[in-house]
Amino acid sequence: MDMLDIIAKRRDGQTHTEEELRNLAKAAATQQVPDYQLAAWLMAAYLNPLSEQETAHLTKGMAESGDRIDLTGLPKPWVDKHSTGGVGDKTTLVLLPILAACGLTVVKMSGRGLGVTGGTVDKLGSIPGFRLDLSPDEMKKQAREIGIALTGQTPDLAPADKALYALRDATATVTSIPLIVSSILSKKIAGGAETVIFDVKCGSGAFVKTLEEARTLKSWLERIGTLAGLSTRANISDMDQPLGSAVGNALEVQEAIRVLRNEQLTTPVSRFKELCLHYAALTLEASGAAEDPASARAKAEEVVTSGAALAKAKQWFLAQGAPEAILDENQNILPTAPVRRIITSPADGWIESMDAETTGWTVVDLGGGRKRKEDSINPSVGIEVLKLVGDQVAKDEPILNIHAANDFDAETAEKQLDQAWRISTEPITPKPLFLPLV
Amino acid sequence: MDMLDIIAKRRDGQTHTEEELRNLAKAAATQQVPDYQLAAWLMAAYLNPLSEQETAHLTKGMAESGDRIDLTGLPKPWVDKHSTGGVGDKTTLVLLPILAACGLTVVKMSGRGLGVTGGTVDKLGSIPGFRLDLSPDEMKKQAREIGIALTGQTPDLAPADKALYALRDATATVTSIPLIVSSILSKKIAGGAETVIFDVKCGSGAFVKTLEEARTLKSWLERIGTLAGLSTRANISDMDQPLGSAVGNALEVQEAIRVLRNEQLTTPVSRFKELCLHYAALTLEASGAAEDPASARAKAEEVVTSGAALAKAKQWFLAQGAPEAILDENQNILPTAPVRRIITSPADGWIESMDAETTGWTVVDLGGGRKRKEDSINPSVGIEVLKLVGDQVAKDEPILNIHAANDFDAETAEKQLDQAWRISTEPITPKPLFLPLV
Repeated sequence: MDMLDIIAKRRDGQTHTEEELRNLAKAAATQQVPDYQLAAWLMAAYLNPLSEQETAHLTKGMAESGDRIDLTGLPKPWVDKHSTGGVGDKTTLVLLPILAACGLTVVKMSGRGLGVTGGTVDKLGSIPGFRLDLSPDEMKKQAREIGIALTGQTPDLAPADKALYALRDATATVTSIPLIVSSILSKKIAGGAETVIFDVKCGSGAFVKTLEEARTLKSWLERIGTLAGLSTRANISDMDQPLGSAVGNALEVQEAIRVLRNEQLTTPVSRFKELCLHYAALTLEASGAAEDPASARAKAEEVVTSGAALAKAKQWFLAQGAPEAILDENQNILPTAPVRRIITSPADGWIESMDAETTGWTVVDLGGGRKRKEDSINPSVGIEVLKLVGDQVAKDEPILNIHAANDFDAETAEKQLDQAWRISTEPITPKPLFLPLV
Repeated sequence: MDMLDIIAKRRDGQTHTEEELRNLAKAAATQQVPDYQLAAWLMAAYLNPLSEQETAHLTKGMAESGDRIDLTGLPKPWVDKHSTGGVGDKTTLVLLPILAACGLTVVKMSGRGLGVTGGTVDKLGSIPGFRLDLSPDEMKKQAREIGIALTGQTPDLAPADKALYALRDATATVTSIPLIVSSILSKKIAGGAETVIFDVKCGSGAFVKTLEEARTLKSWLERIGTLAGLSTRANISDMDQPLGSAVGNALEVQEAIRVLRNEQLTTPVSRFKELCLHYAALTLEASGAAEDPASARAKAEEVVTSGAALAKAKQWFLAQGAPEAILDENQNILPTAPVRRIITSPADGWIESMDAETTGWTVVDLGGGRKRKEDSINPSVGIEVLKLVGDQVAKDEPILNIHAANDFDAETAEKQLDQAWRISTEPITPKPLFLPLV
């Protein structure tokens, strides 16, 4: 492979061959090409974006750049889901048990949070003893036993993505649709899934801010997924306000458990549950595990109502090292913050806005998220959003509950949150949870 | 300095501040920024080219990134010349002695050859004992004593250029006008000159192939030079056929000496001499050392005719370590190749073409040039071009003389040169030596 030729081709907007892109991925994974040449290619690819076909070739090359989880012998369908990231997005914690309770094999690699975007690895990491470093062999073994396994990104799977992502992060070349899509899909393919469902987040708390961009990303994920041999479906969901009630790692685990327990829920948590059921049904339908949308939805609801999903979650958590008491209603084994501060409504009215981005950054500042990749986090802190946009509130009714490490942090958070929400004297029609696809 | 911000600005085609570009140059020189970030910036700068003002800021930053030769106290004007490179271009060897003989102070940093483009350092390097590693202090001392000093690129002068050039070479970002211009000019400024003359080569043997590109480069060199505080003039000269007769290092030194000796010259050597006198006069005029073009030209011719330029060349060569016999007519101390092969005309006619690029690559293949930077060269080999385009030739009259290390190489060269030249049965009007500027 002549890397200079490959860089020059991208620079001049020419079309790469499949062989060139596979070689590039291989070289990135094995460090056979210096970082500065990969960086130059990445910037050229940012400014002269890869075509769909080129993106599919790169995706396959990255997927095959290391080990792959081989699910042969496990019950089909083999499924995975991916969210493009947002504030309060703990969907994986509810969705995976639902799908596994429906008999699907769910194998997933998750990431850590950065900026306002939380990460499933951090949320599950708030459970004492939870292991997030399963090897490909451990993943397969656990999936065979209980139908569900989740790990943090390992160096073994899609190492080309790991290398290229680190360089993109350091060279201002992250926000390129073809590079984003090949990064996401290569990990899914290496993870062994055949059907992958995408939740494209759109709004202030997502990296995609406009519906137009979200639609572009959605169609790229679906089309490149198909070209790369996956069965895919994607929907777009609102991220202008946080998803559900809890934002912060241990709080989000508690909220997920509340949904799995089929408790009576507040309006924000109901909205989160609706999103889980929606994507569960979409997965059942897209993977062929349900015959039509109605039966898919009914099946998803049934495993929640029956407690099968809760039982599956318990199996899962215990298999990955959580203590026996993890789902015990009378015993909270998750870390809790010492200081609470409740923000109440100054007047009667309707919630006009509850900004996801501001809420997300406030949680980062409370210590619950990362500004830089190296930052450590405090799993106990966070915010409970008690009202949704459109909800009616009375004067002095609680709207937000801050969980902080100390009084100073709580006070700072309260001031920051002033920018997050507004009360209207008129009724407000909220944005729908799912945004129109066309 | 936030390098990610600087990369993102270039990526998005925004305008850099002077401070950003100075910091970038400084960081490149001191290796404070990783190569992969510089590489990403370079590709972004290739695809979103720097403006003239930005190029001037970068140029000054690069010039100030290391030591500078301070000519304070030496006779003015302080001059330098630069050729964008071609085949058979040994102009520096004749021009510098002419200018120094006219009383100007000439201080020059030169490069090595790569591909078809020869390098002054290689040509002078064919002289036994010739030192090309003068320090800035040695440069100044020698310039004070004899008015002339030349060195290879040192790590002390414009180290930012050295770092960025090496990266451009490895990332397919060499051929960007703003990056080329800042590279050239930064070394000139660090070298101490106040007036710099540019010979922009245009044609098959130059990196600039078309007159339009040559004019763009010419005007960038002049305008950025002015913005960076230099007095500059540039002309464009033909590089479709080799410059002069000799192509190959020791052969070119001999040709230069022949011109300085004011010998009777063949047509190719006369053409080379004309180019030397033209740029000598332009330098005298632009630096204020002559009042008008006519007196500048007369002055340049006079120091050749009188032998003053030859005497200055001898002073120069001896000062830098050449043996006493370097200009002795009866003693050739330069390396010579053991095999000669003369190519003669197959018919009566006129020379229709004598391709510079083919001639240049043939000399590279003879061992007289480099394909890769690491290659070593044989200073003795090369080609003598005995006829110019437009010259009349008789059947069996010699046209080319190959100097080779062995018979096999000579035969290979002869075959390669078949592609270089053609004979016409009709008279041919050659391209002018200097191409129209507008």
